[in-house]
Formats: sequence, C-alpha cells, structure tokens
Amino acid sequence: MKIALDAMGGDFAPEMPVAGAIEAVNEFDVEIILVGDSEQIKKYLTNKRYLSNKISIIHASEVVSMDESPSTAIRKKKDSSIRKAIELVKNKEADACVSAGHSGVIMATSLLLLGKLPNVDRPAIATLFPSLTGFIVLIDVGANVDCKPKNLLQFAYMGDAYFRALFNEPNPKIAILSIGEEDSKGNELTKEAFRLLKKSDLNFIGNIEGKDIFTSVADVVVCDGFIGNIVLKVSEGLAETVLKMLKREIANIKTGKIGYLMIKPAIRNFKKRTDYSEYGGAPLLGINGTSIICHGRSTERALKNAIKVAVEISKQKVSEKIAEALVRY
Amino acid sequence: MKIALDAMGGDFAPEMPVAGAIEAVNEFDVEIILVGDSEQIKKYLTNKRYLSNKISIIHASEVVSMDESPSTAIRKKKDSSIRKAIELVKNKEADACVSAGHSGVIMATSLLLLGKLPNVDRPAIATLFPSLTGFIVLIDVGANVDCKPKNLLQFAYMGDAYFRALFNEPNPKIAILSIGEEDSKGNELTKEAFRLLKKSDLNFIGNIEGKDIFTSVADVVVCDGFIGNIVLKVSEGLAETVLKMLKREIANIKTGKIGYLMIKPAIRNFKKRTDYSEYGGAPLLGINGTSIICHGRSTERALKNAIKVAVEISKQKVSEKIAEALVRY
Repeated sequence: MKIALDAMGGDFAPEMPVAGAIEAVNEFDVEIILVGDSEQIKKYLTNKRYLSNKISIIHASEVVSMDESPSTAIRKKKDSSIRKAIELVKNKEADACVSAGHSGVIMATSLLLLGKLPNVDRPAIATLFPSLTGFIVLIDVGANVDCKPKNLLQFAYMGDAYFRALFNEPNPKIAILSIGEEDSKGNELTKEAFRLLKKSDLNFIGNIEGKDIFTSVADVVVCDGFIGNIVLKVSEGLAETVLKMLKREIANIKTGKIGYLMIKPAIRNFKKRTDYSEYGGAPLLGINGTSIICHGRSTERALKNAIKVAVEISKQKVSEKIAEALVRY
Repeated sequence: MKIALDAMGGDFAPEMPVAGAIEAVNEFDVEIILVGDSEQIKKYLTNKRYLSNKISIIHASEVVSMDESPSTAIRKKKDSSIRKAIELVKNKEADACVSAGHSGVIMATSLLLLGKLPNVDRPAIATLFPSLTGFIVLIDVGANVDCKPKNLLQFAYMGDAYFRALFNEPNPKIAILSIGEEDSKGNELTKEAFRLLKKSDLNFIGNIEGKDIFTSVADVVVCDGFIGNIVLKVSEGLAETVLKMLKREIANIKTGKIGYLMIKPAIRNFKKRTDYSEYGGAPLLGINGTSIICHGRSTERALKNAIKVAVEISKQKVSEKIAEALVRY
C-alpha cells in the first residue's frame, strides 16, 4: 500500500509528518511518498533509521497556509503539497493521501480532483470517538453545515462501511443523533432522515440522545456537519474542563497532593486512551478515493495512526463498498 | 415572594417537592403553595418543622404522567397539578411556578395560560452550565427544534436579561454557538443570526466554538433548541463517561486504590459543583410570567434551588426586562 503524505501540512510541518512517516514504515507494511519542499524534507530524513526504499519524496513548491481562503488557495496554488498529494491518488500513483493541512482546502481539492462516488450528493467527514466499551463513528463532523434528509441517509451508508472496515463488525448499529429516543422526536431534518433510514437495509436502531454517544448504544451516529462539529468540540472542551476542575478540587483537599501523585499514571493512561492522536485522522468519505484529514496540531504519533487508518480504508476498499451499498439501495 | 410548586411533578413526587418546599421556607424568605393531591401532600408535611404560615396547599385532582402526549394532557386534564400551579401565576396568586413534571406539558400550558411577551415569537428554555470560572447560560436547550434567525436574536435578549438577574452583571457577553470563531463561519441560521446580533445593542462578541462553552469566553451562548439539547445531553453523558473511564484507569494501577481513597472527597466536591441540582431548574423565558422546568429526577435540593431561581427571576423582573429590551430593539 502506498500513501501520499502532505509533508508541509499542520502546525509542526515538515518535522512531524516526516517523523510520522518514518514511524509508519518502521512499524507496518506501507510505502510513503512525502510531498512538499524536498530540501526541507531531506533535512528531517537525514540520519534517521528506516528502510530507504519505503520512503520517497515528490517535490511541491508551494504550501497552503492555515488562514488562506480555500477558493484562492485552490485557484492560485497549483503546486501546493496538498494538491500534489491528492493528484498522486487521482493518478493511481498512491492509494490514499493524508494531510494535517488546511482542512477546507483538503476537502475541496479532494472533491475537485477525485470527484464524488456515484449516488453521493455530499461527501462527509467521519471521526472516531472513544466510548466506554470501544469506539463509535460520528459522521458528519464538519463537511456540510446545512443538510437534507437524503444526505444523512448517505452519511449512514458511509459510516456503516467505515465502521465495518475498521472493526470487522458485520452489522454495525446505526443511529441518528436527536433530542429523544422516540421515533417522533427531532427536528424537520432528522424526522425525515429517520423515515429514510427506517426503509434502508442498514441496521438502523433509531434515535439516540447526546448522552448515549459515549456508551456505544450505537456504532455509527449520524448527524449534520454543523451539529457533529459542535459535538466534537464540546467533547474536546468538556473532557479538558472536567480534568482541570477535578485537579483543582484535588488541590483543595488535604490528602490531595499525595493522592494525586498516586493516581497520576491513571490520568496519563486516560489521556492517552482519549487522545485524538491515538485514533488517527478523519477520512472524507463519499469521494472516489481515500483522503484523510488530520488535526492541525498532529504529532508524529497522530500522523502515523492516520497513515494506518488510510491503509486500512484502502485495503478494505471502503469507497468501493460505499458505492456498492448506495447502488444496492 | 410566593411560588406555586407542582407537588406531583417528577419521579420522586410528592416526597421530593414537599421536602424541597420545607427546605426552601426554612432557608430563605419565600412562601410556597404546594399544588396537588392534598391528602398525599399533608402526609409528607406531617411532623416536619417549618413555619406553617409559609406553606399552603391547593388541591389538584389530576396528575400528568411523564409519557402522556402534551396535547391530550392539556385537553383532558384541566385539574392537573401542572395546570393549577400555572393558573395561580396567571391569576396573580403566585409570582412564579416550579415543576419537575412533564416538560412538554409545562411548556405548552405556560404558553397557553400566560401567553408570550410582546415581540417574542418563540419562548425558549435557558439553562446554567458550570464553567471553569463560574457559570454560563445556554439558550435554547429544547423548546424550539427548528428556528429562524430572529428567534436566536430574541433568545439572546432573554439570556441577557436572565444572566443580569442572576449574577448582577451589567453587560453580559453574548455569543452564538458555531463551528468557528470567524464571522463567516456557521450554517445558514447562525450566519443570518450573526448579522442581526451585530446590529443589536447587546454586548455581542461573535461566534464561539463548542470547546469554549466551558471557559466562560461568553456569558450567554445562543443556539437553536435542537443543538442546545444535544449539547446539554452530550455534556451530561461525557462528564459521567470521563469519571467512569478515569475510575477504571485508577483501578488498573498499583497505587490506584489508596490514591483513589485520598482524592475521593475531591471527586465528591467536583460532582457537587457540577451537579444540575446545585443550580436549580431551567426557566422558560419569553412568556408573560415565570415558569421553571426541573429535571424529572429532581431531588429536594434541586427543587429548593429551583425555587430560589424562581424567586430571583421574579424579584429581578426578568420578564419585564426582556419585554422592555425587545421594545427598545
């Protein structure tokens, strides 16, 4: 499997992407094409141990910065590392691409160069969430801010294929994120999507409430991208806030200092388990190819895990399976 | 101040409402009218210590159960404890009403009997959220699942008046919950609401992301009721999940058991600080009167605090202030 990695994307590029690529080729069976400023990339590859035939470089002379407008970046920067990485997928020189760059530009360029799958109206971003018993997929988390019911139905098929591929689960439980479990609860969008999902051949279990996202009642939770993005950010923010508040309360009690030292490794383990970098990037699903969007703050670990997700999605032919399912439907 | 309390509302009625009423009259200056089955209420009042002139009973022969359809309950149960409590507000025999009963029925009956304030299109439910530095108000958390931009503007005025009343803050910071801080970020609804809020005389600070709800960047966070309800439930669920995961990690390490015992009081304090029952019920704002909706699982403490919120809202004339602000606008 060959993955094109945008070496210039993210807050810590090219250092972290290059380090992530090295970790990946050393840990599992993958070839990486690093796309970006070849001089800079070479600098970070120097004196590192890795199978040199597993990493290659393709030069790109431009970099899209995080605050650029997607339309300008796409129009003007034809030689950007993002675009060149996606072109490699388009030309079948890579199986998938991974980038921690400007997510709007990755999304728009992927759509432009790779195109949508047949029967897909809107691609969507799927993300993994740690739950009490494993992981769940939340889709969409930001590609589409105003959705129609049929979009949510298509997201469900995408999330279904993605969950199957990652967890080898033959029949994932699909739910709509709503404000009550009853069939009749929801807004106009979710009520109509409910009717569509009910008629589908998916394992649709109905509506779930926000509190049930983390209990793995469902494997795949479907919502529009505006809500998905807010849920994602609320969760990030709240988990941090809970830990901060807890630390403050611990500092306020007599036995707190010593007690904290004793449980500190557990807090570290908890953080590790819930850290986004442990479960890699978020794929843009519904396009004709594999494109993984990573957090701008991605570390080498996050990028390595995103490469792993890219390999898995390509190997399991998630795009093909989404297309088949939508034809079948 | 006289508060009508629905003694039959909630999972633990009438025991908890009666106990909450007793706590309230013993702790602060308020008179309570307990509305419900007078025989049952009397049973729970017997042998309790309280100033007997502070608590009175008004009999209601019917109770709305939690799974009843609001339309049927409103049409058929004219002598329900919810309706009678709200009638007392309508007839100026009480300053406000508090109920832990069926929230849909409380909402619809309040609207029906008390009516909307002038210039209010849709009443909204406001709730307090604990943040790192105090509290924020989130509005709407469930009264309206499909909103128009002008509804969000009105919610902002309601939240503003509520926050002022509770925290004596002359100029609360108002924000829209969105998917990015930039002016241009959001869905159709929030982008148009952004333009309306920008032109208002409120202290509008722009969009905030989900992660910033808990940092008190803003005092009042405005969103449609579908999203607000999901955020509320996600937060409840996630806070619980974080604690459970943390406990599991603590149990997995050698020094965990003893460390946990040492920090246990801190966890208790944390729970207390973030427990919904500490900050009372959620008012339905925008109606001509004060009606507080409490969690179905409300304890006596939650009900006592809801009574306190009812007193504060009535004293500070929040409804009048909302009406004035909307006329001014």
